[in-house]
Amino acid sequence: MHDFALEGYHPGLSLDCVIFGFHENELKVLLLKMKNWDKWALPGGFVPKNMGVDEAAAEALFERTGLKDIFLRQFYLFGNPERNNADHVEKLVKRGVIQENLKSWFSQRFVSMGYYSLVEFSKVTPVPDTISEFCEWKPLSDLPPMIIDHEEILQRAYQTLKKELDDEPVWLNLLPEKFTMTELQTLYETILGKQLDRRNFRRKILSWEILVETGERRTGGRHKAPILYQFDLEKYDRALREGLKQGW
Amino acid sequence: MHDFALEGYHPGLSLDCVIFGFHENELKVLLLKMKNWDKWALPGGFVPKNMGVDEAAAEALFERTGLKDIFLRQFYLFGNPERNNADHVEKLVKRGVIQENLKSWFSQRFVSMGYYSLVEFSKVTPVPDTISEFCEWKPLSDLPPMIIDHEEILQRAYQTLKKELDDEPVWLNLLPEKFTMTELQTLYETILGKQLDRRNFRRKILSWEILVETGERRTGGRHKAPILYQFDLEKYDRALREGLKQGW
Repeated sequence: MHDFALEGYHPGLSLDCVIFGFHENELKVLLLKMKNWDKWALPGGFVPKNMGVDEAAAEALFERTGLKDIFLRQFYLFGNPERNNADHVEKLVKRGVIQENLKSWFSQRFVSMGYYSLVEFSKVTPVPDTISEFCEWKPLSDLPPMIIDHEEILQRAYQTLKKELDDEPVWLNLLPEKFTMTELQTLYETILGKQLDRRNFRRKILSWEILVETGERRTGGRHKAPILYQFDLEKYDRALREGLKQGW
Repeated sequence: MHDFALEGYHPGLSLDCVIFGFHENELKVLLLKMKNWDKWALPGGFVPKNMGVDEAAAEALFERTGLKDIFLRQFYLFGNPERNNADHVEKLVKRGVIQENLKSWFSQRFVSMGYYSLVEFSKVTPVPDTISEFCEWKPLSDLPPMIIDHEEILQRAYQTLKKELDDEPVWLNLLPEKFTMTELQTLYETILGKQLDRRNFRRKILSWEILVETGERRTGGRHKAPILYQFDLEKYDRALREGLKQGW
């Protein structure tokens, strides 16, 4: 999204997308390595004047991942006036990340709309943008140095994910279509960063009535072949609208 | 916030604040009646170039209510390119709401950051801004006609409030310092728009362990004087950070 006629974009507004995936029992985020610079950035972009902000975010996500119609949600507008400083723009120009003639565009004060996205790891084909060298999954537990406030944006997205984990079954988006209860529990434990009791977990998850047994089992492991579950999509949609909580 | 040197503000970005109060068993919102026009608007404003977006929202709220340091939270960036249309700006000028020389400023495409706020009704002194005739509480159940997408913004804030009601004890901000269990239940029922079982409500609320008995009772009613509760502020703060839910 960085090859643009400057006048075609909404002034002073950028997007940053924190794209989470789950792979080998690790929570990972999709990051871009800047050209000629040992710094990494969140995928993002600007908003075409004739396009909605959410649509522009979905397009940025599509360009980086090849995925359409996936979970993507606003979580916070980063509006600190100090966030994109002149020193940062100087470095971008000096290292040839951006051309001199884009300096005035990048030197504006930008407020940035933060989105977080949850994707099924195996479906993503990472594609760098024009100012980056490559695009890669990085484990949340071992992040590389990042430009300006991008690590703060990432951490705030992670806090939001943890908080929303129990409100809504957003984690559907991180899983393959069919999964075992153990795989789901591992995902939960990874996001929350703590171990959970197996029986309590199972009881609570099933009480939400959003999972159905597929009638199939995962074979090939050392243990008794475990049951494969999938979501009841109708109930999942209702839980997204109304929340998971019961009791009132 | 509408008397301004145009160049002093962030371009294409506005704020809209949905300020909820609870009074006479009704949920109300603070609205502004436009000058020379039978339309109402949400309190809002623009963002000074040297000020954070959240700080600008807090200032707009202070100007309309006289309140500082109150609950104020981003809920959605309204970014549809059609939202503030040319027809609307023509009407603003024609009715003398804004002067001709501000037309180009108001004719920009604006994305608007939506904030919702919960305030203790009795503490608010409503103050109109320079483009409004007066500032008044209106019941959510009987809203007047509003400009552009302001009713949509308001309804989305209300949906957010309903959803967050069970996640965090945000409703503290709508109540006086001391309150009875019945008053709290009425607030809950009003926001959710349904009746709740008295015993279940009491049990669930107390299970969160954020209320403490004050040792005082509400006197003067017809019934046995009910116990007054207040929040344990330390536990309240933790619940705001970590959520109310238990179980994992």
